[in-house]
Amino acid sequence: MQEVYINLGIRSYSIYVDTGLLPRLGEYLKVFKLTPRVLLITNPVVGSLYGAVAETALMNAGFEVIRAEIPDGEEYKNLATAEKLYDLAYTRELDRRSPVVALGGGVVGDLAGFVAATYLRGVPFIQVPTTLLAQVDSSVGGKVAVNHPRGKNIIGAFYQPRLVLADLDVLKTLDLREVRAGLAEVIKYGVIADRAFFVWLEENLERLLALEAEPLAHAVAASCRIKARVVQEDETEQGRRAILNFGHTLGHALEALTGYTAYRHGEAVAMGMAAAARLAVALGMFPEGDAVRVINLIRRAGLPVEIPPELSTGDLVASMRRDKKVLAGRLTFVLPVEIGRVEIVRDVPEEAVGRVLRLCYN
Amino acid sequence: MQEVYINLGIRSYSIYVDTGLLPRLGEYLKVFKLTPRVLLITNPVVGSLYGAVAETALMNAGFEVIRAEIPDGEEYKNLATAEKLYDLAYTRELDRRSPVVALGGGVVGDLAGFVAATYLRGVPFIQVPTTLLAQVDSSVGGKVAVNHPRGKNIIGAFYQPRLVLADLDVLKTLDLREVRAGLAEVIKYGVIADRAFFVWLEENLERLLALEAEPLAHAVAASCRIKARVVQEDETEQGRRAILNFGHTLGHALEALTGYTAYRHGEAVAMGMAAAARLAVALGMFPEGDAVRVINLIRRAGLPVEIPPELSTGDLVASMRRDKKVLAGRLTFVLPVEIGRVEIVRDVPEEAVGRVLRLCYN
Ligand SMILES: NC(=O)c1ccc[n+]([C@@H]2O[C@H](COP(=O)([O-])OP(=O)(O)OC[C@H]3O[C@@H](n4cnc5c(N)ncnc54)[C@H](O)[C@@H]3O)[C@@H](O)[C@H]2O)c1
Ligand SMILES: NC(=O)c1ccc[n+]([C@@H]2O[C@H](COP(=O)([O-])OP(=O)(O)OC[C@H]3O[C@@H](n4cnc5c(N)ncnc54)[C@H](O)[C@@H]3O)[C@@H](O)[C@H]2O)c1
Ligand SMILES: [Zn+2]
Ligand SMILES: [Zn+2]
Repeated sequence: MQEVYINLGIRSYSIYVDTGLLPRLGEYLKVFKLTPRVLLITNPVVGSLYGAVAETALMNAGFEVIRAEIPDGEEYKNLATAEKLYDLAYTRELDRRSPVVALGGGVVGDLAGFVAATYLRGVPFIQVPTTLLAQVDSSVGGKVAVNHPRGKNIIGAFYQPRLVLADLDVLKTLDLREVRAGLAEVIKYGVIADRAFFVWLEENLERLLALEAEPLAHAVAASCRIKARVVQEDETEQGRRAILNFGHTLGHALEALTGYTAYRHGEAVAMGMAAAARLAVALGMFPEGDAVRVINLIRRAGLPVEIPPELSTGDLVASMRRDKKVLAGRLTFVLPVEIGRVEIVRDVPEEAVGRVLRLCYN
Repeated sequence: MQEVYINLGIRSYSIYVDTGLLPRLGEYLKVFKLTPRVLLITNPVVGSLYGAVAETALMNAGFEVIRAEIPDGEEYKNLATAEKLYDLAYTRELDRRSPVVALGGGVVGDLAGFVAATYLRGVPFIQVPTTLLAQVDSSVGGKVAVNHPRGKNIIGAFYQPRLVLADLDVLKTLDLREVRAGLAEVIKYGVIADRAFFVWLEENLERLLALEAEPLAHAVAASCRIKARVVQEDETEQGRRAILNFGHTLGHALEALTGYTAYRHGEAVAMGMAAAARLAVALGMFPEGDAVRVINLIRRAGLPVEIPPELSTGDLVASMRRDKKVLAGRLTFVLPVEIGRVEIVRDVPEEAVGRVLRLCYN
């Protein structure tokens, strides 16, 4: 068992990473001061695979379970779905100590977290992330959100869970494509903050793709620790936390231009990381050899490293300009200076960005 | 000028209480690190009285103002209105440092605050409360919320403003009934926490009703200080903060049973405080003479102290049982032990409540 302790004062919490955690969900919840009625939020896919295990675990620990299934898909991560959950919570008289448990990937986690953050101004929130991406990324850091019809994660909050249970067993039913997408973020952590971890990934990538429990536990816990360290330094995302956006400036643009349907988020980030590595080389701040290693590792994970020709450089640059993380119109990139260390570079000349991007097509 | 400093670590902020503040709104905002586009949220009534002054003040300080008017009334404090504001904010490209300014009473403040708390996971929020209730209560404490179709303030957050400007001049256009309703909360502060302030209120009530600037400044600042002290001890409402609910257990029931239309919130609280005083006397914990003083002061403020006969004791008790602040079905009251000190009494026997309530009708 790996425990990652997220130190945030009175909002501190633990992430447990192990096999066999889900059947013990109820025990883990029992240590908190909760009313016995739990709102378990999942979706039909995850619910049919793991809903019964979760419910039994909760009931055996004396909880009454109210199960809510939201439709599967990013397009349901919105205020309309949240409203249905508020209705249910209110109708079933959930009170301020009734926990909300998110059982699912990042979509379920973000939405359930937003509801937990705002129902009665905040109720206890427990994450049971069931995708690799959710285990290494979306369940760490306290960001919760729903989408606006015109933009992702526009409506949200910073709200910490009480507990995160990352059960590695549930990843076995995940599409390989989802595993690969999650690995993009894992690789990201190596590049931005931990050279040794990057080297370890170079040596263990195939074992991760095969979902071997031991390396997987290491990779998930290491990822959570890195994200946690960055988040602890900067809980509400004023500065340094932005390094987590390595690969995301272009990644978001790729997702936005393709209507969020062509790529998994991790795939877009993969292309974004490859481009950022190339951009850093072009700006003379990152050794070419290191860029090759980054790009090769991404490729070995089965992720794309080249931009498809139908997405023009001009459209991509225009889309980056509109990113909500861009303050007052400046183009900002997170760029590596060595494997294991990145810098936030503001005011990158659009001309340089365009020139490098044109080299990122196959 | 009175300044009330709310000490909440990195979320600390100041409440300024004075005449002539609104025309200086822009200057006050200039000290923060903000992008120059401001979302000014108000309603048609307040907007037509003070919108132009606020806009001019902001523009003179170099801000560009996007003005949003939400319809007047509690029934518009909901997610649908919030969504319109998210749309506007997003369309007008407000970023994470674009401030939201609430210019209005508690309805505008709560709604604008909820939008500020959740748009892009939180943007700077400035309160310019224009009712007495908003100046002494809703703009202090960081509670923001919208209503659910079936319950008040069900969806919300704890989110602190950067600044509160309580301009006493704007109270001159307020209905006397609104002034009286605000005074109910002012009296509440004296009873729960400050005997000297209560005595001062006994001596100065008429000057407050006449909106004399000097006593008003004292009453508003003293009220904010008391609320702030209670809130500082307990930012997210786990324990002691509940003393602010003196008069509110019954008050909320009175509002709920009359569909939130018969009474101003302060009027319902007035009846609730009178009943709580009587209940405390009946339980042998509060001197009868003090109860008479409390009830007399409420009456002198032009507020009701008796429950109208059409609301039955049984319905009121049933409604209190459903209050969201009631944990796991227990009936909790905030009851005075002396003027200036209250206790949170859990498990008050319903029989005693019913018996006392029956004496509260005229
Ligand atoms: N809060 C944050 O900090 C943060 C960070 C990154 C991403 N996100 C958000 O996360 C979301 C993406 O999350 P995601 O990649 O997990 O997508 P997802 O939640 O849509 O899950 C992907 C798919 O896998 C299925 N699934 C989930 N668990 C499964 C399992 N164990 N077995 C089989 N199928 C399973 C889901 O039903 C879904 O179809 C986005 O909305 C994104 O905005 C949030
Ligand atoms: N957040 C909190 O901690 C908290 C505390 C108490 C109450 N509240 C909320 O506050 C709301 C009630 O606030 P309220 O009593 O200020 O009501 P309100 O906002 O509805 O204002 C009352 C009326 O006065 C008008 N008005 C406002 N300022 C005026 C002015 N200067 N001149 C003339 N007319 C003016 C308004 O248009 C409205 O018609 C409720 O929604 C309640 O839930 C919140
Ligand atoms: Zn990502
Ligand atoms: Zn009140």
